[in-house]
Amino acid sequence: MNNNTSGKRMYEFSSRIFPYLRSITGQGVRDTLKDIEEYISQPEQGYNPPKLNICEIPTGTKVFDWTVPREWIIREAYIENEKKEHIIDIKDHNLHVLGYSLPVDEWVDLEELKKHVYVEEKQPEVIPYVTSYYKDRFGFCMSKDMLDSLPEGKYHMYVDSELIDGHLTYADVIIPGDTDREIMFSTYFCHPSMANNECSGLALAAELIRFVAEMPSKRFTYRFVFVPETIGSITYLATENHVDYLKKHLEAGFVLSCVGDNRDYSIVRSKYGDTLADRALLSVLKYKDHYTNYSFRERGSDERQYNSAGVDLPVVCFCRSKFGEYPEYHTSADNLDLISEEGYQGSFDAMSELIRALEYNRHYNMKVMCEPQLGKRGLYPDISRKGSYDAIMTQRDVISYADGRNDLIDLSEIINVPADEIIDVIDKLIDADLIEALD
Amino acid sequence: MNNNTSGKRMYEFSSRIFPYLRSITGQGVRDTLKDIEEYISQPEQGYNPPKLNICEIPTGTKVFDWTVPREWIIREAYIENEKKEHIIDIKDHNLHVLGYSLPVDEWVDLEELKKHVYVEEKQPEVIPYVTSYYKDRFGFCMSKDMLDSLPEGKYHMYVDSELIDGHLTYADVIIPGDTDREIMFSTYFCHPSMANNECSGLALAAELIRFVAEMPSKRFTYRFVFVPETIGSITYLATENHVDYLKKHLEAGFVLSCVGDNRDYSIVRSKYGDTLADRALLSVLKYKDHYTNYSFRERGSDERQYNSAGVDLPVVCFCRSKFGEYPEYHTSADNLDLISEEGYQGSFDAMSELIRALEYNRHYNMKVMCEPQLGKRGLYPDISRKGSYDAIMTQRDVISYADGRNDLIDLSEIINVPADEIIDVIDKLIDADLIEALD
Amino acid sequence: MNNNTSGKRMYEFSSRIFPYLRSITGQGVRDTLKDIEEYISQPEQGYNPPKLNICEIPTGTKVFDWTVPREWIIREAYIENEKKEHIIDIKDHNLHVLGYSLPVDEWVDLEELKKHVYVEEKQPEVIPYVTSYYKDRFGFCMSKDMLDSLPEGKYHMYVDSELIDGHLTYADVIIPGDTDREIMFSTYFCHPSMANNECSGLALAAELIRFVAEMPSKRFTYRFVFVPETIGSITYLATENHVDYLKKHLEAGFVLSCVGDNRDYSIVRSKYGDTLADRALLSVLKYKDHYTNYSFRERGSDERQYNSAGVDLPVVCFCRSKFGEYPEYHTSADNLDLISEEGYQGSFDAMSELIRALEYNRHYNMKVMCEPQLGKRGLYPDISRKGSYDAIMTQRDVISYADGRNDLIDLSEIINVPADEIIDVIDKLIDADLIEALD
Repeated sequence: MNNNTSGKRMYEFSSRIFPYLRSITGQGVRDTLKDIEEYISQPEQGYNPPKLNICEIPTGTKVFDWTVPREWIIREAYIENEKKEHIIDIKDHNLHVLGYSLPVDEWVDLEELKKHVYVEEKQPEVIPYVTSYYKDRFGFCMSKDMLDSLPEGKYHMYVDSELIDGHLTYADVIIPGDTDREIMFSTYFCHPSMANNECSGLALAAELIRFVAEMPSKRFTYRFVFVPETIGSITYLATENHVDYLKKHLEAGFVLSCVGDNRDYSIVRSKYGDTLADRALLSVLKYKDHYTNYSFRERGSDERQYNSAGVDLPVVCFCRSKFGEYPEYHTSADNLDLISEEGYQGSFDAMSELIRALEYNRHYNMKVMCEPQLGKRGLYPDISRKGSYDAIMTQRDVISYADGRNDLIDLSEIINVPADEIIDVIDKLIDADLIEALD
Repeated sequence: MNNNTSGKRMYEFSSRIFPYLRSITGQGVRDTLKDIEEYISQPEQGYNPPKLNICEIPTGTKVFDWTVPREWIIREAYIENEKKEHIIDIKDHNLHVLGYSLPVDEWVDLEELKKHVYVEEKQPEVIPYVTSYYKDRFGFCMSKDMLDSLPEGKYHMYVDSELIDGHLTYADVIIPGDTDREIMFSTYFCHPSMANNECSGLALAAELIRFVAEMPSKRFTYRFVFVPETIGSITYLATENHVDYLKKHLEAGFVLSCVGDNRDYSIVRSKYGDTLADRALLSVLKYKDHYTNYSFRERGSDERQYNSAGVDLPVVCFCRSKFGEYPEYHTSADNLDLISEEGYQGSFDAMSELIRALEYNRHYNMKVMCEPQLGKRGLYPDISRKGSYDAIMTQRDVISYADGRNDLIDLSEIINVPADEIIDVIDKLIDADLIEALD
Repeated sequence: MNNNTSGKRMYEFSSRIFPYLRSITGQGVRDTLKDIEEYISQPEQGYNPPKLNICEIPTGTKVFDWTVPREWIIREAYIENEKKEHIIDIKDHNLHVLGYSLPVDEWVDLEELKKHVYVEEKQPEVIPYVTSYYKDRFGFCMSKDMLDSLPEGKYHMYVDSELIDGHLTYADVIIPGDTDREIMFSTYFCHPSMANNECSGLALAAELIRFVAEMPSKRFTYRFVFVPETIGSITYLATENHVDYLKKHLEAGFVLSCVGDNRDYSIVRSKYGDTLADRALLSVLKYKDHYTNYSFRERGSDERQYNSAGVDLPVVCFCRSKFGEYPEYHTSADNLDLISEEGYQGSFDAMSELIRALEYNRHYNMKVMCEPQLGKRGLYPDISRKGSYDAIMTQRDVISYADGRNDLIDLSEIINVPADEIIDVIDKLIDADLIEALD
């Protein structure tokens, strides 16, 4: 496993992509992808850099029940007062403009201005994140404290934006393994400057691409998906036969969301909570100091689409603090102070344990009848007395339950020992030619 | 749903049939059926009045392991003292005679009299309800207080009764629906003046016949069964191929017993507790202020026969206060004061919710892949910000779980929302052509 | 059921075999088997004495992953001090020599002596039981108190032993029943003077052989297995096709271990805890004043081999205080004071209840539809009033659930009544020709 350099590298990457003004379409997304491309192709890693496939889907394309929306171009947005002072400006913080705001250029009094400004009533000091993708309107966001402090007078509402027939952009990376059975990680770009609920998923996915590419061998093919949330995953599934292909090949998928803070670990389970993705992630999180197990009813990111009726893919969501559950969520307080190298490293470690568990998740079977004679192989104490067996209980239990009925995650569940420790035992037993994988 | 007029109407009907001296056979039963027939054919309801089929099974007919007993004719029964005063008389209360008492006409002293009088030791003020259908004896019932107060002296035991080769009477009503798959309600007449444990089941069944007959459409055929308890349900099952027909066609059955008081709601589950009848009734009762969930081991009414080995029909029992669990049970205190319009209305509302849930209990499937775009249909908020989704959670959950695996009751269970609310969502989604029923 | 004479007889038998110096091979084992042979062929029992089949497997025989070890001959073992006093001597207690000790004849100082003496640090007053079957070494055991009290000086370590190419001895008894479906009891001989963890299993198995042989009829064939622990059960399974035969014919097996004390009842469940052996033993233990339910992860006796991957037989372990869980375990304190006639009788009663439950463990089916008319058969109260049914609830429940789906143990579980009481009901219903067994 990598040392803490992963956490550091991911944090630095987040800082770089944090300022881009992303939305569900547009230049912010393209700039972000360019940085990801560079990140995953660093020559010093000594592996064949995987290819980032970028796909542009035209406005108006039918994607299941939806239509790819117009592309949003945003150039300038501010409110100025009579003294020509910019009260707010997206140059200062790109949350100040309503996502997908129409253009406007109008002087109004304070009362009229207020109709177009969104604040977060219960958190007066933050700028909220607000969007209006599918209903035409213009608008601004600011802190309630600022709005309350505005004196009567005239204000200039100015947004220089355009909604054009353009494209929705998504991307993926496929790293082939020994089989075409797939593990998927999916994350999103569509939020402007938010650190945990945006940049962190991108940074972790990019780091995992490097990790997987460096794995000397892999049973599974790995797919990494970068999409704008909701409309993007719908578009991804609807295009290039992705949904049919994934329904045939996907064994487990993981949405990465809010993975950069260091407060908790979380899973949002799949629709019925019983897929390999649920089992594998739970078997990892169970051994963290703390984790929260959310049911699918508390979903919110692209696990929604992957689990939707008709799609029904085995996908869960992995978070540190879950979206919607931490106070900074969807506000300007979700910034680079909220995330940390330690938080990232914890996420990376959990995901690399998860990948290792999945790679070893096979049905094991002992090659001898009865318990093997471990003593002659140096795998057993050679003197029998009270207490001499404690140290080898895991080995003893793996041997008993490796009867062809249980995969690695079953073994971990039955024996109540982390998958990582069981893998060590399995490696020893494979070396001793005592065990075999059946699948 | 009807307003409170149902409760009022049922209460009035109970008052009318309360005084009849019913037993498992005889004139009391026939008089009761005549009143039911009238109740269900009230012209002001504006529907085709369903037909009450009355069936008379001769004494001596073999019904499985049993034989239809002789018919009991009871004309007079009293105990008089030396002053010719009637200490008790069935003219005052028809519980005073032992059910199926043989005739007697004998003067005895107090000690001998006591051998033929049944009292309820722990409730000295009530007349108990006692019967002896299958062993020939005569007898009387009175309150313990009265028996204790009797002075020494001679007493005249007088019963003018007859056990003749006659008939056992039962009846049913069949209201056809779109399919021959059946929902059954079964209740009993065999107790003389008892309000909750007799009249209430009859009144509710009669009211439900009107309700079902008035339903504009129905997937199921509805069967309402009126029998004397135990021997009657056995006779019903044993005759006219009912058992074979029901084993083929019955989807869910409900014994109605003690449904007129207003203290609790209860279910006595089926033998294994896993039938559609269990699931449907539990999904309704779960949302009442309080209910009690009895296992089949606490059975007592005709759910016994319907669930018996070899019969094995999906039948539960619905009660307010369960038989045997309330102090007035099987005594003269089970009178018209124990039941109420409110109690009846509660039962009627529960049963009409149950019927609605059963009618809608189909497997639903979304007609589009991924989540549909609800915004363009006015089914979703058009602006996205913290908290804007709470109101539509039920709709969102129905959409996710309508994947062909779940029927309405599953959905209610998974989503933890009453079936009634889910039906409203389903109706909206059907109107939007987004969902279909698979069965 | 036998009266307390069983407990007394087993206790006396233990006293007799307690002093033999048993190990996994050798004369102690053969002496023990001779006594068992005599015990089970007592002429006063009036039955055909079953045959004890003794089998000698040569040193060097391959048994799955193991090899039958050399036979250990032990003649003398002591430590003497400079005054020629025997500090310890196996004539005083046969735990004083390390099991399978090599010969030695050497004078050493105290420091060197200590390298070859095993003590139990936490129980300074007991001699521990220590063996070294598969690694060549010599050694002695004594109490820590004694070792600590030894003065500096020279000590003579003397063991006159030999490891020869001889045999491993095992034995079994087969008592045929109506079918070749088998119930197995397995116990072990390999510990020298230990009462609960050795003699008790042998005594109970021997007593059960007498009990089973005296049963007038039996559906099952009964197999009793006597082996040294671990290597013995492996050898038993590996030879004479036993493993294949048992995989075809064994319905339930019970390892008997530590069954002579009177402190608790215990089960160590099978690997998945779901076999007939688990169900049957749990249904008996559930009604004891107290019992402990250990998972397979706390296994330790021959249930290890019987449940091992590839063998996978339905075998649990029955104990009073479980091995490893009581302080006297594997020390000189596991002596004849620890076990008692009462302890033995409790074990015997449990096992005879178990055998009765297994013999009656069939799927029952009522021969009539609906509840039968029990009154006419004297199986039901002939007068109906509050409370008159309590006494016959078990009968009523058996009748309902005897629908072909449930075996005796299911019935006991569903009805929550001991199997013994249900058997009484079933016998009555069979007499009345109301019920039949389907298998």
